[in-house]
Amino acid sequence: MRNGPVPDIVVRRLPLYLRTLRQLQREGHRTISSEELAQLLGVTAAQIRRDLSYFGRFGKQGYGYAVAALIHELEVILHLDRLWNVALVGYGKLGQAIAHYGEFEPNGFRITAIFAKSPEHIGQIVNGIVVLPETEIDRVVREQGIRIGIIAVPPDAAQEVADKLVAGGVRAILNYAPTVLHVPPGITVREIDPISALQSMTFYLHDRHDASGNGQDEQSFADIMERSPVGKRPAAH
Amino acid sequence: MRNGPVPDIVVRRLPLYLRTLRQLQREGHRTISSEELAQLLGVTAAQIRRDLSYFGRFGKQGYGYAVAALIHELEVILHLDRLWNVALVGYGKLGQAIAHYGEFEPNGFRITAIFAKSPEHIGQIVNGIVVLPETEIDRVVREQGIRIGIIAVPPDAAQEVADKLVAGGVRAILNYAPTVLHVPPGITVREIDPISALQSMTFYLHDRHDASGNGQDEQSFADIMERSPVGKRPAAH
Repeated sequence: MRNGPVPDIVVRRLPLYLRTLRQLQREGHRTISSEELAQLLGVTAAQIRRDLSYFGRFGKQGYGYAVAALIHELEVILHLDRLWNVALVGYGKLGQAIAHYGEFEPNGFRITAIFAKSPEHIGQIVNGIVVLPETEIDRVVREQGIRIGIIAVPPDAAQEVADKLVAGGVRAILNYAPTVLHVPPGITVREIDPISALQSMTFYLHDRHDASGNGQDEQSFADIMERSPVGKRPAAH
Repeated sequence: MRNGPVPDIVVRRLPLYLRTLRQLQREGHRTISSEELAQLLGVTAAQIRRDLSYFGRFGKQGYGYAVAALIHELEVILHLDRLWNVALVGYGKLGQAIAHYGEFEPNGFRITAIFAKSPEHIGQIVNGIVVLPETEIDRVVREQGIRIGIIAVPPDAAQEVADKLVAGGVRAILNYAPTVLHVPPGITVREIDPISALQSMTFYLHDRHDASGNGQDEQSFADIMERSPVGKRPAAH
């Protein structure tokens, strides 16, 4: 086991490992080699071993990983061996899509409070929850002991909402608003930012060649992507 | 200027610099010191200088950055000195939220083709575009010369959609489906993955202390976050 704090980049990869392992389990796999897991994830087997080494020893040389056991360990490490209550703030088109997204509950999260600004949304009943005014955030979050908030409001309203969530006791914020939130130490923020994601991909699109549909840059693209664990993907098969 | 390919992690930070600089410009700022910019972004001034050093010299020692000039340089580097056409696949609740998201066009992207599977969606007119069946992806993407696709379909349909987009000439995919896409070399994929983002935050939530609302872990949280450029945020002010 490695010593010292776990780098955040490692923490961010663990849910991807967990997702893939759960998929393997659904497909009936009981063990998986680090090479096979790496191929599915588009990373190297060495990286998986290095990442997991922060948390102890997993898998046996030559035997691979026991899928169910590794899932369990990852759930414990990530504190996913429970269901987390979540507050959603914002009930416009984006907030509505989030409220109806079917992947939260099977993955450990349940939206138990929804807040809106617009009178047309306040009072609506969504999945059995009454949409409340944003003025209630602090009180309701505190009463429910909610630690996780999702912000889906316009950018100029996001900081105020974040302040209210934090005042109520939220310590982890998923921010869909395209703005950098300023929060006290100890609060984790992750951005869901499709604009930045798109803008970081156009870097790799060389207009002229792309406009003509010329594929001659394939190799140099591949070289760049090789340097990026996130961008790297195994070939289609 | 540094030599060699630009690490993908640097490429991914450039849109955040751009977004903050545009905000500063809207507020009337003409110059900004790297320290002020760093504070706004929640990173170190050294990191900004190091990131920009891949692309040449920006700013003068002691004078800071000229906001308009740096915006222009970043737009050129990221190929955002043009408007990119984008294909959206999937028109359920998520796809509808994406189609109506107001931030794409001001930031360089215009959805010019929308594809759906459900007969109730096909034929609808959205922002002046007719929603087409997914069988048309390859042909339409090719005819429009579209290089960027957004996938907002259920996970088990995502790979097939990705294959069709790539067959039509798409080279950059924004994937909202919680599944690892396998694409040929030269294709860039970014994930929009709220589940993984949430699951990587619960790592930092120590249930017992959090459940009791006890703040005694603040400092150790802060220590962990200090190691993470993404999670680190300046104190509220």
